[in-house]
Amino acid sequence: MDSATAFAPASVSNVASGFDIMGFALDGPGDTVTVRLTRTPGFTITKITGTTAALPFEPDLNTAGAPVIALFRHAGTSFGAEIEIRKGLPLGSGIGSSAASAIAAAFAANAALGAGLTGEELLPFAIEGEKIASGAVHVDNLSPSLLGGFVLVRGYGPIDLVKIPPPDDLWCTIVRPHIEIRTKESRQALPKQVPLKDVVTQTGNAAGLIAGLLTSDYALIGRSLHDVIAEPARGPMIPGFQAMKEAAMRAGALGCSISGSGPSVFALSRGKKTAEGASDAMSAALDAIGCAHSRSVSLISPVGARLCSGETA
Amino acid sequence: MDSATAFAPASVSNVASGFDIMGFALDGPGDTVTVRLTRTPGFTITKITGTTAALPFEPDLNTAGAPVIALFRHAGTSFGAEIEIRKGLPLGSGIGSSAASAIAAAFAANAALGAGLTGEELLPFAIEGEKIASGAVHVDNLSPSLLGGFVLVRGYGPIDLVKIPPPDDLWCTIVRPHIEIRTKESRQALPKQVPLKDVVTQTGNAAGLIAGLLTSDYALIGRSLHDVIAEPARGPMIPGFQAMKEAAMRAGALGCSISGSGPSVFALSRGKKTAEGASDAMSAALDAIGCAHSRSVSLISPVGARLCSGETA
Repeated sequence: MDSATAFAPASVSNVASGFDIMGFALDGPGDTVTVRLTRTPGFTITKITGTTAALPFEPDLNTAGAPVIALFRHAGTSFGAEIEIRKGLPLGSGIGSSAASAIAAAFAANAALGAGLTGEELLPFAIEGEKIASGAVHVDNLSPSLLGGFVLVRGYGPIDLVKIPPPDDLWCTIVRPHIEIRTKESRQALPKQVPLKDVVTQTGNAAGLIAGLLTSDYALIGRSLHDVIAEPARGPMIPGFQAMKEAAMRAGALGCSISGSGPSVFALSRGKKTAEGASDAMSAALDAIGCAHSRSVSLISPVGARLCSGETA
Repeated sequence: MDSATAFAPASVSNVASGFDIMGFALDGPGDTVTVRLTRTPGFTITKITGTTAALPFEPDLNTAGAPVIALFRHAGTSFGAEIEIRKGLPLGSGIGSSAASAIAAAFAANAALGAGLTGEELLPFAIEGEKIASGAVHVDNLSPSLLGGFVLVRGYGPIDLVKIPPPDDLWCTIVRPHIEIRTKESRQALPKQVPLKDVVTQTGNAAGLIAGLLTSDYALIGRSLHDVIAEPARGPMIPGFQAMKEAAMRAGALGCSISGSGPSVFALSRGKKTAEGASDAMSAALDAIGCAHSRSVSLISPVGARLCSGETA
């Protein structure tokens, strides 16, 4: 029987001034999903590895299961599927764990069925999975996990994605305090209304970030990485956030803000050495308050979801 | 005695989703200012032509006078100056008339004195003139009039200008209903607070507009030319605005919105023919309600303020 295995990378959404409209893919860990066709209809999640969390084995309640079901229905096939999930990303960490599972699942299902859908055509199916995790449609994690690089979500009605290639020497530091923040709670902390002058500040910075990325103007990227909307509301929910941010900036990072809805914090730097220095400095800031954490340094991944070789047969 | 004459073009600020952060220069009419050094200190406005409006002849109350005075003070010169103003732009029309006068004045004063300031260094002096006209510092007209092309005002503290070269075949239609809207009144119509979802829409479109301009993606420019903040508040102040906008879009324009704080309305189109079609359609919409108006079609000017040849001696 045909099967396919796909990998989708972690992602950072929001990106400071890009609140709810931008994300980028990380060149590092991600989630892997295998979809194996069965002659009998129906869907089974056969295995979930890489996490100690009690993820649901009911396919329609699972972030990777729902996209497979939706895509099989769309294709009108009589096949069923066995689904195997290998989590490489921690849940509730703010680096797009549920998005990576949903994207990898849609990608693998498309390949297993030979449905021939393009990357962007897979998005609606992945959204079915992301809805389960976050209760709302936010594609700023899904789209970079799918397409790679930076992705601007120009609009939501209809979804309009603009791929922005990452500058060559742009590195990302991720520091993840070992606490969990629920996306829904983090969203409730956001202001419902924003003063007009803050809107002008935010749009100027979002526009500047795009200009900086497209022209590889690292200094402009740095000047644009300021969020006056979500960060002031969410920063206090993350232990040591201000100390980490100040430490990253002192270490030469271009900017530092909350990854997704947290608790992970990202910094962008020009060059690996600076990104590693930021990582050390941010880590020391969390050590100083006794907060356990993990950390990583990586390039922005120019590619998003991909098939794992030798797994389609 | 040394003298210099400078020209500064009209400009469109706000640019739909670029509310308060973007503007572009028009390749067409503008204001011209001559600054003639005098051995005796003190400043005189000797002539104002091209307008029937009663502009003040007191130099420190005049949009072109104040920049000259400020720049002469900065240079620490003992010279005075005679200032001559040729208005090519109608006042209160929303295409940066006061900005053009202030920029041309600063430009001419710099050349007459041989002060050697760069374009961006002239901005603070031009701001002295614009303050008189609008009571506040908004550089989204001043900066394109000074630098040409599109200019993104990334931030105001300090002012951070990013030049965005215009796509080759991007044309602008301007239709100006013959009514006056005061900038201050138009500003009072704006909302003080903006719902978060509108902020996301606006930032997505502002970011999309920059991406479209930098990659000459005309369709993306069109999809991004939507303003959910100022246009809904100000549109009703302009006679026939909705009818003009709909007419422009039917004629194939990429987008259409209010120029500055109005009453001029701009449309952007790919190609001269489409821009002229939009002009005809918008004009017919105003004719239908009996509203007198002027109109023009021009390229985006890649250059801003410039010295007029043969006038520095």
